[in-house]
Amino acid sequence: MGLEINPALVERVLVAFLREEITKAGFHRGVLGLSGGIDSAVSAALAARALGPENVWGIIMPHRSSNPESREHAELVARQLGIRSEVIDISPQIDAYFQGRQCTNVRRGNKMSRERMSVLYDYSAELPALVVGTSNKTELLLGYGTLFGDMASALNPVGDLYKTQLRQLARHLGLPREVIEKLPTADLWVGQTDEDELGFSYEEVDRVLYMLVDQRTRRDEVVAAGFEEAFVNRVILMVKRSHFKRRIPVIAKLSDRTVDRDFRYSRDWGT
Amino acid sequence: MGLEINPALVERVLVAFLREEITKAGFHRGVLGLSGGIDSAVSAALAARALGPENVWGIIMPHRSSNPESREHAELVARQLGIRSEVIDISPQIDAYFQGRQCTNVRRGNKMSRERMSVLYDYSAELPALVVGTSNKTELLLGYGTLFGDMASALNPVGDLYKTQLRQLARHLGLPREVIEKLPTADLWVGQTDEDELGFSYEEVDRVLYMLVDQRTRRDEVVAAGFEEAFVNRVILMVKRSHFKRRIPVIAKLSDRTVDRDFRYSRDWGT
Repeated sequence: MGLEINPALVERVLVAFLREEITKAGFHRGVLGLSGGIDSAVSAALAARALGPENVWGIIMPHRSSNPESREHAELVARQLGIRSEVIDISPQIDAYFQGRQCTNVRRGNKMSRERMSVLYDYSAELPALVVGTSNKTELLLGYGTLFGDMASALNPVGDLYKTQLRQLARHLGLPREVIEKLPTADLWVGQTDEDELGFSYEEVDRVLYMLVDQRTRRDEVVAAGFEEAFVNRVILMVKRSHFKRRIPVIAKLSDRTVDRDFRYSRDWGT
Repeated sequence: MGLEINPALVERVLVAFLREEITKAGFHRGVLGLSGGIDSAVSAALAARALGPENVWGIIMPHRSSNPESREHAELVARQLGIRSEVIDISPQIDAYFQGRQCTNVRRGNKMSRERMSVLYDYSAELPALVVGTSNKTELLLGYGTLFGDMASALNPVGDLYKTQLRQLARHLGLPREVIEKLPTADLWVGQTDEDELGFSYEEVDRVLYMLVDQRTRRDEVVAAGFEEAFVNRVILMVKRSHFKRRIPVIAKLSDRTVDRDFRYSRDWGT
């Protein structure tokens, strides 16, 4: 698969993935956070097709600092898909913790992301349902997400799609134009956009990541292909530095069978 | 290593693990939740030896429903080790979310566990420090912990020690008798003890887990060794059913290099 995808085929694969993984685990429902952005809209659309819209819960979790447009877009997606949706204001929890504390926007944003995860897992226990993830491949590789926050889920249908591939799928799925075309933002503070914060566009970084990761192109060849050396180096550094976000906690090894080292998959265990 | 450990050797290995992993990542501090129980006391003692007590933060996070004895024991551990400690009452955040909601003790307990993780990660960003885990091997194998809650950390020194092994290490480390000898509890509701809730003792389950996992003994041989068949079957089922808690979210595979499948470790990547 190149950066240009066959969206009908991808849709078929991902709908089958969701249906199979969720029913295999003994569930028939999914729950996910609807941010008003394209990633969660695509995950919700795939889940609605896989499970039926009546089995999908889209939880909208604004903070009082969030852009009201985000909530409107999330509600638009829920209406269009016909899934169930609920709004939970996370301001009381977040503000209770930060009262009297100095903190940066990034710390506040991470706390909000983890609170949303915590709410989704509470819903998943109540319904019961599995938490459907919404992190795309660009974010996962760059580590542009909150560990144990938006990066946490039971299963993730879009984690092997770069942002620019996800946009192609979103158009194919017929998602609202406003959601597809707006500037991507984590909405952690007013006016934030991903591309401003990152300092490069998804178009550029996806091409570099695709060469480095998928095509296994050497660094100097990527530069020779026309990308600035400093930019390529920065992307490589981001991937390396965020490695810890893509694995489970490191356990000190003492025995012959350590969790996640020698005792990993059910199939390793004949019992 | 059998169920009887050489505590001096284990201490040496785990102190070196913490020092090496934390400095390798560019940090010199650790932060962890101090529950008043034996697991977090052992992790804190190891971290104090590895980093110096002045570089270890023990955060005590009671809810108004917690047993006051838990906090006293946590403060006792912090004093004995000479580490820094802080008390954060999580009641406002938890109560804000559950206000007007019916819920079970288990859901409330999981929400508290995730809130504590979220607070620890906020401290880890502020200090900066790495979050030191406290889940033991018995809990990890049985899935007796909260995913993205107490099971979440940057690195875990005690994850390859069964509960009964951890008790031997705690005695060797000279931790307070009250902490070592009290009945293990997640303190999720008044009077809860792990062994009541699980329906078996750590002594028993550790012997069964050690045979099944470490010694690769067949189910029928474990039964022949004198354990009740129903109990052995229940343990096996708990390990299998909790497998999802020991791995990162499943990503739908589309490309040749999927995060955590074909693109896993830094060393896989020559760039």
